[in-house]
Order: sequence, then C-alpha cells, then structure tokens
Amino acid sequence: MKALVFDNGLSFRADWKKPVPAPGEALVRVTYAGVCATDLEITKGYMGFTGVPGHEFVGVIEEAADDRLEGKRVAAEINLGCGRCDYCKHKMENHCPARKVLGILGKDGAFAEYLTVPFKNLRPIPDSISDEEAVFIEPLAAAFEILEQVKVNEYTRAAVLGDGRLGQLVVQALATTDCSLLVIGRHEEKLALLKARGIPTRTSAEGLQKQLDLVVDCTGSPDGLSAALDIVRPAGTVILKTTVAQRPGADLNRVVIDEVTLLGSRCGPFAPAMQALEERRVDVKPLITKVFDIEQGVEAFGYAAQKGVLKVLLRV
Amino acid sequence: MKALVFDNGLSFRADWKKPVPAPGEALVRVTYAGVCATDLEITKGYMGFTGVPGHEFVGVIEEAADDRLEGKRVAAEINLGCGRCDYCKHKMENHCPARKVLGILGKDGAFAEYLTVPFKNLRPIPDSISDEEAVFIEPLAAAFEILEQVKVNEYTRAAVLGDGRLGQLVVQALATTDCSLLVIGRHEEKLALLKARGIPTRTSAEGLQKQLDLVVDCTGSPDGLSAALDIVRPAGTVILKTTVAQRPGADLNRVVIDEVTLLGSRCGPFAPAMQALEERRVDVKPLITKVFDIEQGVEAFGYAAQKGVLKVLLRV
Repeated sequence: MKALVFDNGLSFRADWKKPVPAPGEALVRVTYAGVCATDLEITKGYMGFTGVPGHEFVGVIEEAADDRLEGKRVAAEINLGCGRCDYCKHKMENHCPARKVLGILGKDGAFAEYLTVPFKNLRPIPDSISDEEAVFIEPLAAAFEILEQVKVNEYTRAAVLGDGRLGQLVVQALATTDCSLLVIGRHEEKLALLKARGIPTRTSAEGLQKQLDLVVDCTGSPDGLSAALDIVRPAGTVILKTTVAQRPGADLNRVVIDEVTLLGSRCGPFAPAMQALEERRVDVKPLITKVFDIEQGVEAFGYAAQKGVLKVLLRV
Repeated sequence: MKALVFDNGLSFRADWKKPVPAPGEALVRVTYAGVCATDLEITKGYMGFTGVPGHEFVGVIEEAADDRLEGKRVAAEINLGCGRCDYCKHKMENHCPARKVLGILGKDGAFAEYLTVPFKNLRPIPDSISDEEAVFIEPLAAAFEILEQVKVNEYTRAAVLGDGRLGQLVVQALATTDCSLLVIGRHEEKLALLKARGIPTRTSAEGLQKQLDLVVDCTGSPDGLSAALDIVRPAGTVILKTTVAQRPGADLNRVVIDEVTLLGSRCGPFAPAMQALEERRVDVKPLITKVFDIEQGVEAFGYAAQKGVLKVLLRV
C-alpha cells in the first residue's frame, strides 16, 4: 500500500506492507489525514518514533469482526491503553503507562492507505460532518480537554496565547462557553479568522498584567509560559498545551507567590468536539491551508512547517 | 525600643523609634518571634525590604482603641490588604496588589519590642497554646493552605520533599488527614522527628517514579521541582511551597504530557492551624532548635542559616 514512512528521514513508499488487524482491531481505509506539530516534531526525532506517523484522520472501516461495522465512516481516539492498569480501569487510557499512541508511540498511524485500530477507539462520524472537518476531531478534542479540566463560565476572563493551528481550535472551544475571551497572536491574517468570528484579538499583551483568570499557552514557544505568567491574575490558572524543548525565562516564583495553578493539558474527549462540529458552533474549514495527495506527503510536511500555514491535509 | 533592623546589613538597635498605631491599628508588645527562610532571604536583599523584619510572632496588645482588647495575647495574619480591591472584597487579602506584608513588604515587623497591626489582622490565642507554640501559627497556617487548595483524603498517596522547617510543618498538617503519607529528606536527625510521629520516612525516591497523587516540594532547592515531577503520577498534583532563584532542570513537558497540576502555595488560614495546635494534633515544640534574646538577634540569624538547624526563636 501507499504510505509515508519515517525512519531516519521521511519518505513516500508505494509498496509498504498493508497492516493485518489483530483480534479486537478493525482495518480502516484512510480518506484524509492532518499534519500537526507533533508530526513535524517526529521528523526531528521526537519520541524516537519510526514507522508511519499520522494521528488526525478520517477513514472507512474496511474489515471488522462485526460485519455491521464495515463501511462506517470513523475517527479514532489515539491512545491505546493496556486495558488492565489502574488508569485504564478509570477511563484514563490517555495516561496508561504501557499505552501505544497511533502514529506517535509504538503503533503505525494514518499517513497510509490503511491502519489498524482497536474497536474501542473507533468513533463513528455523523453524516453532517464532512471528511475534511472530521480530520479536526482529534485536535479539537484536545482543545476541549481544557473545559474538562477547569470551570469556565461567564465570570471567566480568558486569554489564548498563539494564533496557530492549536490556538485557533482552543479559541473556538473556549468560545462555546460564556467566558470573556481574547486571543493574543502575531499574525494579522490568522487573527483575522478569529476576528471574523467576533473574538477580540490583540498583537500585544500590553496593559493586561495580572488581569486574566485563565491563560492558555498555545504558542509552542519557549517564551509562552513567561508571557502567560505575566498576564494571569493571582490565584489564576495557566494551561500549557504545547511541549517545548526549554522554557528558560519562566519565573516559577510567581507561581508560588501568587498561588497560580499551572496545568498541563494534552488529549481530550471526542464527544464534545464532534457535537460542536455538528452544531456548527465551531468552524474548522477556514483552517485548511492546503490539501496534498499522499504521494506528495514529503512536500506536504515541508509546506506545513512554513510560517503562516495553518492546517495541511493529506488526501489518501 | 530594641529592634533588629535590616538596611544594607542586619544590626541590633537599642534606640529604634517605637511605632505609633495608625487609626484601625493596635500596638502590640512582642513576646517571641521566629526566624524563617524568608527572613534569611531578606538579609540577602529579597523584596528590597528595609526596616524591621519578622512576621512569625506572638505578643500582647498594649494599646488599642477598644480597651477590652488590651492585654490580649495575639498572633497576626501578615498580609495587610488595601480593603477596597476585588481581592480584598473576596477575602483574598493575601493577593491584594497593593498589600503590605508584616516584616516583608512596606511594613515593619516583629523583631522588635513593638509593632503595629491592623485590628482585623489580629488573632487572639487560646490559653492552651503556649507562647513558643504560638510563634508557629503563621508558618503552620501556610502548611494548612495545602488543604484549602487540594482535596486530600484516605485515597491520596502524598509525599513531602524536604525535612526542614517548612517540610516538618507540611508533613504534620497532611498527617491530620487520612492520606497515605511519606516524607523524603536528607537529614536522619530531622527525619527522626517525623518517624517518632509514625510517619514513614525515606532518604531516596527510588522506586517511586510516577507513583504519588500529591507531591509537596518543601526543599527550597532548585532541584525540588524536578524531583517532584519524577514521582508524581499522571494527572497528579505538585505543590510548590518555596521560592528559589532558578529551577534549571525542571522538565515542564512532563507537566503537559502527563497533565500534571502544578500549584503555587503561600500563606494560609490561621483557624485550622490554631485548632490543630489546641487539639494537640500537631506538635511544634520539638522543632525549636534554640532561643536567643533579641539583643543576640544578628547571631541568631547566623545560627538559623546553618545546616541542621530547624526553628530559631527570638525572645523579646
């Protein structure tokens, strides 16, 4: 089958071995897959992953033990828990110490014609969500994770730092609440997408020192935490959505003195993400910058790494 | 009056000007005061404070608008809020941006014969609490702050890092709950105090990787956060109780990937601290290493800075 493979370099292969589903798994034919920052990191050696990357996708079940599943359009939760540990028993497969993660850790992903996925991870997609939109369910779920972690309501003054791929989704997820929301970014054309949705945007945090109840760092930058700590109020909350190699300037004494809560946030629940897409309370289509065929996957990665680019999709 | 004064150096003064209470303030004659890490930091320039340091104390009201208060034995909440801002209106004087802090920020403290304190900050001390014990109310309240911030119960596996002044109090505060508790320290003689109270102690975190629900960093060390992140479980909580100049090795990506909550913690509520002392559920007397007269205050600071020393008191 066709596949994008990372092994000391990313390459397109026309003759990659088609995977065979294990017991409890379905074979899924991929329709579209999205390139995210983690994929770009993987090509720099992140997680030491080798194989087929890709974890944001939509596909059709081609083969499953239960015939009724065949032909269903699906997305998939990407964390594959062991099913036996305390985390898995408490529905925290995301934190299973023995987990595999589609296209990221110990399991081939979606930049290929086919991948195999455990039944319990599959999520059928309602007809009202298009294929291109469905690719965003996974990253949008990660954005909605914030609403699982902190109470956000009409009294919450929230700011999102970063107007990139993840920032755009986090802003839209927070905008489904009654909170007072603003986004601070550096790219006028990306901020314009949010401005068009009625969300106040700024290019500087001037005048906001210690003003915000909730600050979400989606910058992917070593300076994001520092910038967030500047504007969060005493006893407020900072959410870290992105991993970065170093955060040299962050003064964690502000966390102590002002009793700030610093919260890490990763994968999230598919249900509210799918519901928000169905109800048209979020709109992900304007985030698609370009669609490439999988044969042009290497080129697509280079394109996705450029400044100004939001989401790049691969058509399989 | 006699006072210890910091101004480009710490010195004892026999002729320091006795303070005059402003409207709404009482004049308090100090009986005992405790030297804490913050005091030692102040003598290195922390907060740019000049004047009389000292914020852990017990005294007797000598002069107050209401005669009935005179002669009462008191401790005092150390944060003096403006009384008008949103924080003060929500009983968060600790975070008032215009606050003064006794002996730390903009207001003379307790290493003197007298200090002035707003009435609303005074807390009468029950007879069952001795003067020496009462000095610990303020730092013990800071330890009890943790129980205001996180839910701790019989299911909580908690660890305290650090067996020093603050660690000892935090361990005792946590031990008033049903949690499963252990302390990791470096000093056998300090750990012995906790062992005597039935608390499991260790000198290494070996084998604890990602095992604890709650880890409280009381090390006062740049490496404390890293050590805490090593042993906290996914979706667990790390509490930072101490400010340190730098935390170079801390990998905040673990916070993101494992969705750890990092919580700053500072001053706390006096009521539960006083109640625990009254009910003998904590015992602070073994923590007193030495008592100095205020005339020997400079010597007392030098002594308090030595390794192995727990609490040093000044008798006024």
